[in-house]
Amino acid sequence: MNKPSKQSELKTPEVTTGTLPASDKIYSAPESDPSLKVPFREITLSGGEPALRVYDSSGPYSEADYKPDLENGLARFRTDWITERGGVEEYDGREIKHEDNNATGDRLARAFPITNKPLRGVGDAPVTQYEFAQKGIITKEMIYVAHRENIGLAKARDNAQEKLDAGEGFGAELPTFVTPEFVRDEIAKGRAIIPANINHPEAEPMIIGRNFLVKINANIGNSAITSSVEEEVDKMVWAARWGADNVMDLSTGRNIHNTREWIIRNSPVPIGTVPIYQALEKCDGDPVKLTWEIYRDTLIEQAEQGVDYFTIHAGVKLAYVPMTAKRMTGIVSRGGSIMAKWCLSRHQESFLYTNFEEICDIMRAYDVSFSLGDGLRPGSIYDANDEAQFAELETLGELTKIAWAKGCQVMIEGPGHVPMNKIKVNMDKQLKECHEAPFYTLGPLTTDIAPGYDHITSGIGAAMIGWFGTSMLCYVTPKEHLGLPNRDDVKVGVITYKLAAHAADLAKGHPGAQVWDDAMSKARFEFRWEDQFHLALDPETAVKYHDETLPKQSSKVAHFCSMCGPKFCSMKITQDVRDYADRLNEKQEGMDGMSDAFNALGDEIYVDADKLAAEKVAAEKKSNEGL
Amino acid sequence: MNKPSKQSELKTPEVTTGTLPASDKIYSAPESDPSLKVPFREITLSGGEPALRVYDSSGPYSEADYKPDLENGLARFRTDWITERGGVEEYDGREIKHEDNNATGDRLARAFPITNKPLRGVGDAPVTQYEFAQKGIITKEMIYVAHRENIGLAKARDNAQEKLDAGEGFGAELPTFVTPEFVRDEIAKGRAIIPANINHPEAEPMIIGRNFLVKINANIGNSAITSSVEEEVDKMVWAARWGADNVMDLSTGRNIHNTREWIIRNSPVPIGTVPIYQALEKCDGDPVKLTWEIYRDTLIEQAEQGVDYFTIHAGVKLAYVPMTAKRMTGIVSRGGSIMAKWCLSRHQESFLYTNFEEICDIMRAYDVSFSLGDGLRPGSIYDANDEAQFAELETLGELTKIAWAKGCQVMIEGPGHVPMNKIKVNMDKQLKECHEAPFYTLGPLTTDIAPGYDHITSGIGAAMIGWFGTSMLCYVTPKEHLGLPNRDDVKVGVITYKLAAHAADLAKGHPGAQVWDDAMSKARFEFRWEDQFHLALDPETAVKYHDETLPKQSSKVAHFCSMCGPKFCSMKITQDVRDYADRLNEKQEGMDGMSDAFNALGDEIYVDADKLAAEKVAAEKKSNEGL
Repeated sequence: MNKPSKQSELKTPEVTTGTLPASDKIYSAPESDPSLKVPFREITLSGGEPALRVYDSSGPYSEADYKPDLENGLARFRTDWITERGGVEEYDGREIKHEDNNATGDRLARAFPITNKPLRGVGDAPVTQYEFAQKGIITKEMIYVAHRENIGLAKARDNAQEKLDAGEGFGAELPTFVTPEFVRDEIAKGRAIIPANINHPEAEPMIIGRNFLVKINANIGNSAITSSVEEEVDKMVWAARWGADNVMDLSTGRNIHNTREWIIRNSPVPIGTVPIYQALEKCDGDPVKLTWEIYRDTLIEQAEQGVDYFTIHAGVKLAYVPMTAKRMTGIVSRGGSIMAKWCLSRHQESFLYTNFEEICDIMRAYDVSFSLGDGLRPGSIYDANDEAQFAELETLGELTKIAWAKGCQVMIEGPGHVPMNKIKVNMDKQLKECHEAPFYTLGPLTTDIAPGYDHITSGIGAAMIGWFGTSMLCYVTPKEHLGLPNRDDVKVGVITYKLAAHAADLAKGHPGAQVWDDAMSKARFEFRWEDQFHLALDPETAVKYHDETLPKQSSKVAHFCSMCGPKFCSMKITQDVRDYADRLNEKQEGMDGMSDAFNALGDEIYVDADKLAAEKVAAEKKSNEGL
Repeated sequence: MNKPSKQSELKTPEVTTGTLPASDKIYSAPESDPSLKVPFREITLSGGEPALRVYDSSGPYSEADYKPDLENGLARFRTDWITERGGVEEYDGREIKHEDNNATGDRLARAFPITNKPLRGVGDAPVTQYEFAQKGIITKEMIYVAHRENIGLAKARDNAQEKLDAGEGFGAELPTFVTPEFVRDEIAKGRAIIPANINHPEAEPMIIGRNFLVKINANIGNSAITSSVEEEVDKMVWAARWGADNVMDLSTGRNIHNTREWIIRNSPVPIGTVPIYQALEKCDGDPVKLTWEIYRDTLIEQAEQGVDYFTIHAGVKLAYVPMTAKRMTGIVSRGGSIMAKWCLSRHQESFLYTNFEEICDIMRAYDVSFSLGDGLRPGSIYDANDEAQFAELETLGELTKIAWAKGCQVMIEGPGHVPMNKIKVNMDKQLKECHEAPFYTLGPLTTDIAPGYDHITSGIGAAMIGWFGTSMLCYVTPKEHLGLPNRDDVKVGVITYKLAAHAADLAKGHPGAQVWDDAMSKARFEFRWEDQFHLALDPETAVKYHDETLPKQSSKVAHFCSMCGPKFCSMKITQDVRDYADRLNEKQEGMDGMSDAFNALGDEIYVDADKLAAEKVAAEKKSNEGL
């Protein structure tokens, strides 16, 4: 693994490459389309155990000996898929304007060296995955994600139905095996999306929906205060390396356009943005100066660049804004507060709401998915589930139907800060009001009192809401409420959310989820220390923590651990128990026979609590009488 | 705050002392007993906000200018309470034996300088809190914990019933205000315990029960491999400083007796142990050599020292052991596996089970509470909720009744590794089988795949099971499965579990819980940065993270934060919204009037999705016809 060195000049960004410990990057093709190369990671195990294949979002960066060419970007492998199915045209595209990189700032980031002509949909032919699905057409993207969700298996696992039955899905309908047709059907129903802008052909298709693996999103982005293009590209690759399925570029500072171009051209995962952030930069940060024309132009700018989903706060209606006046923390969504300010200052309905159909037309032409933003999400436990939040959610449900009618893919953003007892109603209400469009939540944070640990306060809520049915969990880093996440924070946020998403998959009974836990547990039981490190979501941290107590190489193959020491190991003793049970079996005595034998013994020594209590009362009575 | 310096010789341990940032240690007396000094922490706030008073487990160490006298131990303030109510006698106590400090090891830790003669109960007079409660007697301990649970308030908060109604307690019966009589009644019903060995008069009484604040336990202790007395005493004080309500000394190495004495004499929180660990050390680590006599002697040794609760794995019956043979990870509890080995090697029922009544008699005489251990808890997701686990739980229920009949206080230990969908049934079954005795769970960990992050995999399960009704959460540190926690790990584990316990209190609707969140949220909204740091569970980490991005002192009073920068702040905009709403109110237009006005506008611009969809279908049809 090559760690990037920080550079002071505007050189080519450097990113982390190479395989993860004991892992191979492999590509597998589904039977129905041998031309596809679907990526997985295979973790080699010792002790005669088969390699464990896991979902892998890291892109080619995690191939052995991969040499990134960040000046050219990743291979645009999906362009052929898109052009072959027709309905799109290449065109010159919008001219890059000075204001795109923030007219007030310095040009700190040079333009990306390559310019690609953008594609857009023409006429009524289907462009979006939703439109193809509605027409009954299975796209390559759908075949790709089906294979990806199955971890490359050719058929359902033997115990798939059993696993599903043992789980609790709260109405989710996970299949035993994901077929391309199942993918198509879920997308056609609006219950899943494949965020895949036709101008981001570098990205590996992935699916977001309640009946698939729970996904996670990592936010990156520079701000007016700090950070650079190099840092952001590195953070994107870094986030994907540790498991981010999507990345949002939330840049709000200078050179937003160029930063984004570098990120998208090198991103193997879908990229989301909040276009109003850039639109606001074009207005010198003053929401009052925002216009539909500036916003519209920004949508096209970003759609041409290849942003895969836009957060659009079109549910912040003027009438809802005063509902927030009595809140503890008002409007904490940046997008929401910008729109609130705009509405109030002009005493006018939100231009996102009044122009929603045109927004749909633009997004449809590039297959940019909607992430309908929750601009009125609660920013504190006090404000959770209030009138403003739910009023907006109902509006998002209306907008979902419009976007679908216009052919767009849609997901819905959710809170925020919510105590545990109020989480499920958020999920239930979202499913009902938004017609089962995928839910994409930030946390939620289950208490406000632990800044510095909000990856955990929110990881609790995220695991729960993921279990209840949320399709993608937006990570929160330890720096939430305090500062911008650095590289280490990004990793901690990603790992925390990977484990939360996985805990949700397990609880739902996802047929493929527990295989990973079982591999870990078996390695643990058999003292295969290296395998435990390799199977960890974060192998580096696992081995580092182990070595703090027992650094010697020999202790990694020892049949004991630092908790108990050589003689005192519960796992060692359990192995003895197992040997004993085996010997019993060999003697044909069997488990049942043994249990029976001891049940008899059990009766003999059983103490009658009620009898004892009666005796005690009698004794006390006697004692009291003596007073 | 004075950080201890590491010492190489067997000197006096050093511990962290001094107040927390912007905090005062205060003592408050309940009306009904002005002689009591119940500790709290008061966090001073700016902006005209009243100081926030919070529960405080840290003991006198967090007083301003406190000079610890570790060679003498803490003040034994509870001795008078105990001797005044009678029924106890002072006696010479068991002689310390060479084997108590592990005959095979070096004498690495000198004996504690002071020797106190132990107390024990005599005759039938009540000794335990359970016995007093059963007799209708309210002890000073009960008055103390009532005041402590109320955070020193003299009456219920105005909105207490409202808070309770808004929460979900799953059958818990939290009161609006905790009276001493309520405490007594809960203890008499066996639904709560005050772990308070009459030989640990230094500890500040605290209560563990479903209808009180959720508590947390931190494990410390040396092992055969590493660590020292100095480290362990420091860790105990450190854990309590950050919020540990109880500490378990799980030492398994050398000089166990002396280490424990230093810990107990200086501990302001109840101390728990697993006596079988020390008994095993006396047998050179060989479970087969264990005898009831050695174990019994160890119980008395530790009861005389003042251990407040014993984990006793009396539910690991011989007949249950073979049920674990088909498990993925067998028996992972150290105590459980020792007893399993003992039972199988002798083909004999557990001596803990067969001698349970005598164990009760010993523990009653000192008011050592039972923590009935779950020796067969699952060590992996695969093994969760299996036959062995639940068979043992049922036996723990039987033993609970016996212990109560014998006058003892009881809590029940719980798992372990459990996926989210299988957590609630653990709680429900425990309440039913164990007759509502308090549940005390380790996590549970909701996935196995994240070693290095098991404070988080388990924090998720802990918050949930705390909400469902668990009374005390045993922390898990980032080092779980990998090594022994150091000081930093202890802190991370404690803070993680404090936030999980608090999230549970919030979700249950505890009348006093949300005050802290509200204070934090208000500080956040009003840009009172310093207050946010001071209100954080971990003020040091909060300010450190903030300063990484914006180190300047001026930015801590600035009305913006590092996430958005000066112009682009959502909270700033919200303040404008609020001003606007206020102006509207002044004009007598009111919120409702404004909403009505915009509802009309809303209708006008509303887009009919169904109509749009129909148009779209028609257009497509036309387009297809053209093909």
